[in-house]
Amino acid sequence: MIRLLYHAQVYSSPYAIGGTAIAIQDDRVLAIGSEEDLLSQYGKMALCEDMQGACIFPGLTDAHLHLEQYALSLQRVNCETDTLQECLKRVEAIANKTPAGKWIRGHGWNQNLWHEGFGDNILLDAVSPHNPVYLTAKSLHAAWANSQALALAGIDETTPDPPGGKIQRNSQGQPTGILFESAMQLVERILPVPTPQEVADAILEAQRALWQMGITGVHDFDQSRCFSALQILDQSNTLRLRVLKSIPLENLPDAIRLGLRSGFGSSFLKIGAVKLFADGALGPHTAAMFQPYENEPHNTGILLLDHEDIVEYGREAVQHGLSLAIHAIGDRANHEVIHGLAQIRAYETHQGFSPLRHRIEHVQCLHPEDVPLLAQHHILASVQPVHAISDMEMADAYWGTRSRTSYAYRLLQNHGTTLIFGSDAPVESPNPWVGVYAAVTRRKLNGFPGENGWYPEQRLSVQDAMAGFTVTPAFAAYRERELGKLDQGFLADLIVLPVSPFDISQDQIPSLHPIATMVGGEWVFGGVES
Amino acid sequence: MIRLLYHAQVYSSPYAIGGTAIAIQDDRVLAIGSEEDLLSQYGKMALCEDMQGACIFPGLTDAHLHLEQYALSLQRVNCETDTLQECLKRVEAIANKTPAGKWIRGHGWNQNLWHEGFGDNILLDAVSPHNPVYLTAKSLHAAWANSQALALAGIDETTPDPPGGKIQRNSQGQPTGILFESAMQLVERILPVPTPQEVADAILEAQRALWQMGITGVHDFDQSRCFSALQILDQSNTLRLRVLKSIPLENLPDAIRLGLRSGFGSSFLKIGAVKLFADGALGPHTAAMFQPYENEPHNTGILLLDHEDIVEYGREAVQHGLSLAIHAIGDRANHEVIHGLAQIRAYETHQGFSPLRHRIEHVQCLHPEDVPLLAQHHILASVQPVHAISDMEMADAYWGTRSRTSYAYRLLQNHGTTLIFGSDAPVESPNPWVGVYAAVTRRKLNGFPGENGWYPEQRLSVQDAMAGFTVTPAFAAYRERELGKLDQGFLADLIVLPVSPFDISQDQIPSLHPIATMVGGEWVFGGVES
Repeated sequence: MIRLLYHAQVYSSPYAIGGTAIAIQDDRVLAIGSEEDLLSQYGKMALCEDMQGACIFPGLTDAHLHLEQYALSLQRVNCETDTLQECLKRVEAIANKTPAGKWIRGHGWNQNLWHEGFGDNILLDAVSPHNPVYLTAKSLHAAWANSQALALAGIDETTPDPPGGKIQRNSQGQPTGILFESAMQLVERILPVPTPQEVADAILEAQRALWQMGITGVHDFDQSRCFSALQILDQSNTLRLRVLKSIPLENLPDAIRLGLRSGFGSSFLKIGAVKLFADGALGPHTAAMFQPYENEPHNTGILLLDHEDIVEYGREAVQHGLSLAIHAIGDRANHEVIHGLAQIRAYETHQGFSPLRHRIEHVQCLHPEDVPLLAQHHILASVQPVHAISDMEMADAYWGTRSRTSYAYRLLQNHGTTLIFGSDAPVESPNPWVGVYAAVTRRKLNGFPGENGWYPEQRLSVQDAMAGFTVTPAFAAYRERELGKLDQGFLADLIVLPVSPFDISQDQIPSLHPIATMVGGEWVFGGVES
Repeated sequence: MIRLLYHAQVYSSPYAIGGTAIAIQDDRVLAIGSEEDLLSQYGKMALCEDMQGACIFPGLTDAHLHLEQYALSLQRVNCETDTLQECLKRVEAIANKTPAGKWIRGHGWNQNLWHEGFGDNILLDAVSPHNPVYLTAKSLHAAWANSQALALAGIDETTPDPPGGKIQRNSQGQPTGILFESAMQLVERILPVPTPQEVADAILEAQRALWQMGITGVHDFDQSRCFSALQILDQSNTLRLRVLKSIPLENLPDAIRLGLRSGFGSSFLKIGAVKLFADGALGPHTAAMFQPYENEPHNTGILLLDHEDIVEYGREAVQHGLSLAIHAIGDRANHEVIHGLAQIRAYETHQGFSPLRHRIEHVQCLHPEDVPLLAQHHILASVQPVHAISDMEMADAYWGTRSRTSYAYRLLQNHGTTLIFGSDAPVESPNPWVGVYAAVTRRKLNGFPGENGWYPEQRLSVQDAMAGFTVTPAFAAYRERELGKLDQGFLADLIVLPVSPFDISQDQIPSLHPIATMVGGEWVFGGVES
């Protein structure tokens, strides 16, 4: 079938208007050009749709999100509240209508925003006396449990801190319900486990929410159950997002034994990079830094992998056709990763391998000397602009002047680094328009810290910000010849916007919403025929 | 692009002529019908090709072959000779032009056809004094090495037989160079290992050979290196066979941890079933039988898995979306597998899983009471008709009257069993026309054992034999809606035959060859534009 969308402003990419009409055959772009030309060539045989002057843009890709966790989060208590009291109120409301004994899950709190700081188990017990409660922090590096949850997990004053984790305790040595890093596993391992089919059902709902924001593709960083769920959807032809699925490091030996390589898969679901973690995160002060946190003179965070580890895992991976995506937040962690990847580049060259598209996830704080090295070694910077505006106060408070080269998108770009943009959902909302706004303004949605934003020299153009959600993620997925642009032969994944993001004021960007979204030549949201 | 093949006899399937023309758009069938209708509808916009009265048929699938081994075998000494002397002569010819120390590989000998029986290391040493030699038997269940190869493998009179294997020894206890089953590993583990890229290069050559026989799809039963090689080809868009890739049992835990499911993959490369081995083979007398081999009153073969093992592995597999393909040759092995799979069917029902398309590979000898059970439990019989004509004398000699329900294709079909056909290449030639001939005539190529063939009641119609290479393998791969037939929306994988296989005498079938082969709408062999 041929479909002709006319009376539109069709962007081939953020940098180029292609014409006023686009013809689509089956799932691909047949032609872009002037309304006159395309109507005369295809008008008779095509299904013609008047776009009424709207703007057509390539579909957006969120290059870093946790699809299963985001999907399940849509079913959880939203703990992203201004006060601890409001959070407790929301838990209470759910507890009142949940059968006794059934787990209550929630997500999104940040003790840094609450004047009391962390909550504790006693506070939760008061609002949920009959249900175990487990609430993850927005950073996903800490959690808050009530007494019933602690008891079910077997956590008491005799439980030692697990390696790489910490059980917060009060002055009597009793656990307070707050668990850091690997200590979260003590509860998580006893939580009821959703089946792949349940996850698949949740992803179907999430997919709908993402389409409404203009997202037609994601790079997922969840685990193997999410991969199973995605295959269930793909095989029933209900997966209508282009998913690049990363492989957790723990599965690297499995992938190698099986012979699975990055790039394998269907048009909707492909194998991505092996995901490694080099450190923790800013919120819980576990990101690995060269110098201590400003408010903790003896804490430099937790380095999980040094450059030798990266080289060791990395050689194994690239030798078997698997690329790398390495989480690094602190300047020390980024330093280790960059130097590890530089050695991997040398190894690839020495072995005669074609260079894979390795990426660093987050790249939040860089040592000034390391900034030019990403471009030099062709390392993709997978960043989440919304983190810059969410984290700015924490960054100033805990990293001080080191924030000058943190979330330093413009600086990286000026050095020639390829930036790919994501949201880290459910850590943040996956709304890409908030991401574009953040990258362009460096201001919170409420305008803070004022007109020029936080470190205004790092602001990007709207074009460059949109490229981070379109062209560059397609490159990272080795799909730059069929995704991320609207051009002849490219997949017909597109969004229809009421106005061009280039023609509105910056403050209007976060509330931009597509009026229709097309994936593989079919309207999945809105549209004339939906 | 639209392509119109006209002036043809177009078979939609072995059972139905669809018309005299077929229109193809991009990689799929747009329409089948009369030349007049299709020329008037698409003639102006299409590239029209006059097929000069030829017969167009769906492309054939070999549902059981070892693609890597077949590809590498094309580079090896062909040891399928009438005499041991001829085999030695071929090795000598290669040895004379191979640098000293480099391995010489060969394949295809069968001691049952040589009046001396097995060769030995001394004979090989005489023709290859400076090169290690390793020649695998046609059955792949035995191998023949020279002294240099034995020495490199560390095999001498002190080496014990490994579990599941045997080192043949002379009366002085010295190894003779003949290794059975797992003892082959002692040499194979020290053979130079081809890289995935080298295997990929070999597969490209093999693909060309297969297209020339009319094969456009294969179900592969090789290991993970083959899977890697196939991904390399798929990602460079040079894989133009529809491959269903099985997973060896040893990789089942890896697949489960990764979350990999049967059916995942691209249009050219999809994950198939987990492959298990329930016994050995007829040639080396290791197929597991209820009663002893006719000539070996104390040998009932080797049973590798009983029905409880099948249930144990099978539950693990189906729980994670992986179907099963189980090698079973002897009546005892088939009995265990059938009863194991029956329990897996009950488990699937009990768990509310949709039933997967499990298959038995080879199904050579069945106990008469087990014959109806395959259909009853919807177990696919993956058989290789060429084995029937290669093995008939061995079957008569070693299984006696049990041959009555061996290679019993017609009997299985009469009970409602779905038969899928393959070649087991490189154990046999992958030429599917020999397979069709074997299924239809039950005669060797030289006519033996006479006009009606071996157990003539098992002969199939040409239609049914062709279905085993087209319609049913597509079903086994869960692709019956897009492969195995030529119908609107199906993938345009087709072959052009000079005459219809239904219009020629049976004896002409083995020499039938396509004049052109198309995969995904493109001529890959022959054709007007090739």
